[in-house]
Amino acid sequence: MDTKQHPGALYPVPLSVEGYFVLHQMLRLRWAEWRKLEQKTRKQIAEEARAYFAEAETPSHGQSAVFSMVGQKGDLMLIHFRESVDQLKQAELQINSLKLGEYLEPATSFLSVVELGLYESSVKLFRSLAEKGIEPHSEEWKHETEELLKRQREAMRSRLLPQMPDARYVCFYPMDRRRGEDKNWYMLPIEERQRQMDEHGKNGRRFAGVVKQIITAAVGLDDCEWGVDLFSDDASAFKKIVYEMRFDEVSAVYGLFGKFYVGVRVTADKLPELLEGKLPAKPSAS
Amino acid sequence: MDTKQHPGALYPVPLSVEGYFVLHQMLRLRWAEWRKLEQKTRKQIAEEARAYFAEAETPSHGQSAVFSMVGQKGDLMLIHFRESVDQLKQAELQINSLKLGEYLEPATSFLSVVELGLYESSVKLFRSLAEKGIEPHSEEWKHETEELLKRQREAMRSRLLPQMPDARYVCFYPMDRRRGEDKNWYMLPIEERQRQMDEHGKNGRRFAGVVKQIITAAVGLDDCEWGVDLFSDDASAFKKIVYEMRFDEVSAVYGLFGKFYVGVRVTADKLPELLEGKLPAKPSAS
Amino acid sequence: MDTKQHPGALYPVPLSVEGYFVLHQMLRLRWAEWRKLEQKTRKQIAEEARAYFAEAETPSHGQSAVFSMVGQKGDLMLIHFRESVDQLKQAELQINSLKLGEYLEPATSFLSVVELGLYESSVKLFRSLAEKGIEPHSEEWKHETEELLKRQREAMRSRLLPQMPDARYVCFYPMDRRRGEDKNWYMLPIEERQRQMDEHGKNGRRFAGVVKQIITAAVGLDDCEWGVDLFSDDASAFKKIVYEMRFDEVSAVYGLFGKFYVGVRVTADKLPELLEGKLPAKPSAS
Amino acid sequence: MDTKQHPGALYPVPLSVEGYFVLHQMLRLRWAEWRKLEQKTRKQIAEEARAYFAEAETPSHGQSAVFSMVGQKGDLMLIHFRESVDQLKQAELQINSLKLGEYLEPATSFLSVVELGLYESSVKLFRSLAEKGIEPHSEEWKHETEELLKRQREAMRSRLLPQMPDARYVCFYPMDRRRGEDKNWYMLPIEERQRQMDEHGKNGRRFAGVVKQIITAAVGLDDCEWGVDLFSDDASAFKKIVYEMRFDEVSAVYGLFGKFYVGVRVTADKLPELLEGKLPAKPSAS
Amino acid sequence: MDTKQHPGALYPVPLSVEGYFVLHQMLRLRWAEWRKLEQKTRKQIAEEARAYFAEAETPSHGQSAVFSMVGQKGDLMLIHFRESVDQLKQAELQINSLKLGEYLEPATSFLSVVELGLYESSVKLFRSLAEKGIEPHSEEWKHETEELLKRQREAMRSRLLPQMPDARYVCFYPMDRRRGEDKNWYMLPIEERQRQMDEHGKNGRRFAGVVKQIITAAVGLDDCEWGVDLFSDDASAFKKIVYEMRFDEVSAVYGLFGKFYVGVRVTADKLPELLEGKLPAKPSAS
Repeated sequence: MDTKQHPGALYPVPLSVEGYFVLHQMLRLRWAEWRKLEQKTRKQIAEEARAYFAEAETPSHGQSAVFSMVGQKGDLMLIHFRESVDQLKQAELQINSLKLGEYLEPATSFLSVVELGLYESSVKLFRSLAEKGIEPHSEEWKHETEELLKRQREAMRSRLLPQMPDARYVCFYPMDRRRGEDKNWYMLPIEERQRQMDEHGKNGRRFAGVVKQIITAAVGLDDCEWGVDLFSDDASAFKKIVYEMRFDEVSAVYGLFGKFYVGVRVTADKLPELLEGKLPAKPSAS
Repeated sequence: MDTKQHPGALYPVPLSVEGYFVLHQMLRLRWAEWRKLEQKTRKQIAEEARAYFAEAETPSHGQSAVFSMVGQKGDLMLIHFRESVDQLKQAELQINSLKLGEYLEPATSFLSVVELGLYESSVKLFRSLAEKGIEPHSEEWKHETEELLKRQREAMRSRLLPQMPDARYVCFYPMDRRRGEDKNWYMLPIEERQRQMDEHGKNGRRFAGVVKQIITAAVGLDDCEWGVDLFSDDASAFKKIVYEMRFDEVSAVYGLFGKFYVGVRVTADKLPELLEGKLPAKPSAS
Repeated sequence: MDTKQHPGALYPVPLSVEGYFVLHQMLRLRWAEWRKLEQKTRKQIAEEARAYFAEAETPSHGQSAVFSMVGQKGDLMLIHFRESVDQLKQAELQINSLKLGEYLEPATSFLSVVELGLYESSVKLFRSLAEKGIEPHSEEWKHETEELLKRQREAMRSRLLPQMPDARYVCFYPMDRRRGEDKNWYMLPIEERQRQMDEHGKNGRRFAGVVKQIITAAVGLDDCEWGVDLFSDDASAFKKIVYEMRFDEVSAVYGLFGKFYVGVRVTADKLPELLEGKLPAKPSAS
Repeated sequence: MDTKQHPGALYPVPLSVEGYFVLHQMLRLRWAEWRKLEQKTRKQIAEEARAYFAEAETPSHGQSAVFSMVGQKGDLMLIHFRESVDQLKQAELQINSLKLGEYLEPATSFLSVVELGLYESSVKLFRSLAEKGIEPHSEEWKHETEELLKRQREAMRSRLLPQMPDARYVCFYPMDRRRGEDKNWYMLPIEERQRQMDEHGKNGRRFAGVVKQIITAAVGLDDCEWGVDLFSDDASAFKKIVYEMRFDEVSAVYGLFGKFYVGVRVTADKLPELLEGKLPAKPSAS
Repeated sequence: MDTKQHPGALYPVPLSVEGYFVLHQMLRLRWAEWRKLEQKTRKQIAEEARAYFAEAETPSHGQSAVFSMVGQKGDLMLIHFRESVDQLKQAELQINSLKLGEYLEPATSFLSVVELGLYESSVKLFRSLAEKGIEPHSEEWKHETEELLKRQREAMRSRLLPQMPDARYVCFYPMDRRRGEDKNWYMLPIEERQRQMDEHGKNGRRFAGVVKQIITAAVGLDDCEWGVDLFSDDASAFKKIVYEMRFDEVSAVYGLFGKFYVGVRVTADKLPELLEGKLPAKPSAS
């Protein structure tokens, strides 16, 4: 059982550390009904929403952000980082309770948790433990992996509990790893998966200054296995990074991609402007 | 016919015992209409619902539970355990007849029956009967399998007629076993399926203290073959168990997963609080 | 052309005989609007519906039946047996014209025709004709097949024009035979298909006293190739028969299954009770 | 480039001639709203619709027909033959402008063009030109193919600009040719495709007296590659022809079928009767 | 990492240059509500829309166009060319803010960016750099590719920032390149992809006088990888070009096609006519 698939093989499940729970909410604004309100009423409602999001966008044990979605998959995308599923549900209920909530309708959503996969250190540790004859799930094995996880959680704290990147644009998409009859990610030896992930990571890092990436895991939480958020001040960078990386073996062969959602960040103070039908200009750098 | 697929092979269909019929109802609350009611009216309606679910959540020949769904697949998930399909339909009609029913809309549902698969004892019995030259579906074969089932139903009574676990979170998903052109679960010899299920079970049991699992069969009842309910006080455990087990051969190669629904348990006495837009706090241990 | 796929092979298309045209209608009841009516009005409308279905459930050149659907795929499933597509369309229009029709909405439907496949006698006949050197679609071939069909239509009259089984529960599902790149039912020699269907039929007949089965063909009429209706007084039998038979080669490899719809029979006299939100009890045996 | 896939192979694209543009409109009638009108108003609206379709069903540079759809994919199917896409769009707008249009809702549609594939004469011509060393797309090649097309357009004029068949029933379905990883219609040599189409055509022609078939191409116009309309006075013939032909190699291996829509023809003069909820009887032969 | 998939292979990602961001909006007109307005009101609303589109269709750092969609996928298709995603979002909001916006509903949309793939010059450059021993992503490699891109951006300026073609008809469809388990576009060596794209391009160019084609990339922006717009005064040319090119290896084996949307161009000055339910005639050549 220790080497699930192949006797003698390294333990196949990579270790990972988790941070914020994350909820993406795609919402439609019922523009026709909204526009029928008197401007004064709209202003009051918009002000209440502004106040809510002004607080929610302030980082403090989590954070929320509003994006104006491009195209017809929805009008608003809300991204919430929180320390627990309860707090995400509370955010949902609070937004729903805003007077603006009456003019919002659900389009789709995605529940996940910030995850950092530890392929490299997992392979190192599993190899070292295997050489010492330590069985997976033995007390010593558990102790060693727990120690590793503890260290990594410390070291990666700021990436596990990230602040919302300050970029103008977001691109969100869910994805799966293929489990085809012939090409099956989960049946590859962990060393091969590590090699592919390593190459993939290197290619991604070449976009470091331009695109900020947050990976969340949704296995057991939502319909795809992972969610990817790309943040950039250059919308064409989304095309470049995704296209470039699609040629990586891990994406070319094993990547199954869901829908893509693109939005323009709207800070809380500019939300009333958006609700009057104007896209707020990009704030000048400060 | 006795060894359907391969002459000389063991009888391929594992025995199983069944318990409660189960209905999952995912419902949307028409918040806008609900909020337009006067608070007093909302209170009366909520009180009627509270009273219904207070009785329904009391275990007695079945049980119901309410979950507040996270994300936009619905607002409420109701899980009903009952002794018959008639009682499930009655529950549906009763909830529909509540005054609250006017504010609920169907999102999706899943009909199934608690099932315990008996791969291990099936293989043992079929092997022993085959060695004695007893033909499948002969009188003796039927007698022996019926005896086994009777014993197992007794022994597993509390798992076949379970109480609703007391956990804070639920994760529900339907699933199928792959019948691909090349990789086909139903064409594997029963001994090979037993081996994979055994490994899968062992991996699952390592989460014993953290995740409680109820498996229901939906073959012939709903669109997938099985439904899985995970209950835990730790929402991140859903990710861990599902990811860990996805590397088991039976999941990696043969598991086809449907949508995942995550909810937070709301006991009947806290339902009015939820209906006022507040997520009730987790009750302190008692 | 006579042996379409392989020179020298037996003619590949099995003969079949057809009976009633069948329409399944899955309907939603607009409960909220319905409940807003005064009870007196509901009673009048329910009485009109009762009267319609009382006549329609009486077998006479066809028959209709009402089922209360379990789960959220619909509220009512109507099954209509009729001698022609015109009569099915008339039934649709008549139900639509009932005052109750205003409170019904279409969910889904399935159009098909009762079919009995004649694999065994087809193979015998085709083999015998081939041995005599009679070409498919020659005058003699057509005469011989027509004679066979005429005999079978007589012999199977009661199965082609069935009465609605008297059971408490129904399970309906559409299905296809796989035409994969590698595993293709339609490219198997007719003798191999006959062998698999024969095994399948034998396994089905072991449920004879418990489950009554009506097979309808929908090729050229609706989106799947066949529809299966299972009728039983034991809802758990649906799970048992479908699971048991899924291991038959013809299902394991070539069966592609659609959605499953489960309902509880409600006779016309009990329809008003259902419309008041109560599931009528199973009538005592008479 | 001339022999796209394989050097030395015959030019792979079969020639074809085109006739009427065709639009299928599947529409829902909002029965509840329609029934709320006073009968007098319904009569006036129905009369306006009758007058429109009376003219539109008269063949003259195109033609329209109304079918009452069986099952819940829609209430009315309109089939329009026209000489241009503009005229189809005008028909759409005109029907929308009828007072009846207010009670109609779109369900689905299909845009295509009557097409006659010329596999046999294409293969002959391409072979003869190849033997003469004439390169595809050379001036002479273009001249020869244009001459062939001109002759075929003349010869097949009545099939390219067909009258609406006078049959009681229609069956419409869209379809594709498979481009699988292994079985790919478009990678077969044209001679092999011609052989399969020839066999398919022969099998189809055996239904000549019973089923009239109109094939339209939708490549570049709608979501499937082709649309098939079958017209017959015997609805069970749809099942027979589609099932029989599904065993042809071209269908068994390369046919991918969409949804099937079945309707009963309602001539313009009988449309008011249908709109009152009665299926007009089949007119006696005249 | 430089030759991602195969050691020694040429760098696999073709260079490309990008131009306008493009948004396709498919919208439904709520005809019933629209028609209920007094004609005078409709006129005023139509005039406001006309004025908006008259300005938007004037080429100046982008351009918009209105098409009347054929069939029931929507009523209006709007195509917007803009210099930034912000400007596209502004266009969305402006149209939504028109009084006409109250009568429009989203059907679907597609976000992409004009792209010219540079397979030929990429292969030449990568080969030459490889021969010189210059590593991918080295400073020199980056410098050389940037130089190439700069030159191409200059040379192709009018195709990257195109004017809206003046044709009567448009055909839009999204598409992907297959990443099958066996046939995987992204795993082909770049030279093989270049060969197939070259053949494909040559076949496309034979339609040069008849069909104008604009290719946009949607990788990282929307659900498919590319969008194709065909513009022609001959609607049957859409069928011809798409069918002819489907036999190209790159399409036959690697092309996965989405939905097809066909529309008739309506210039701003004719929009009021369309909104009164009449298809404006094709303007005579000017």
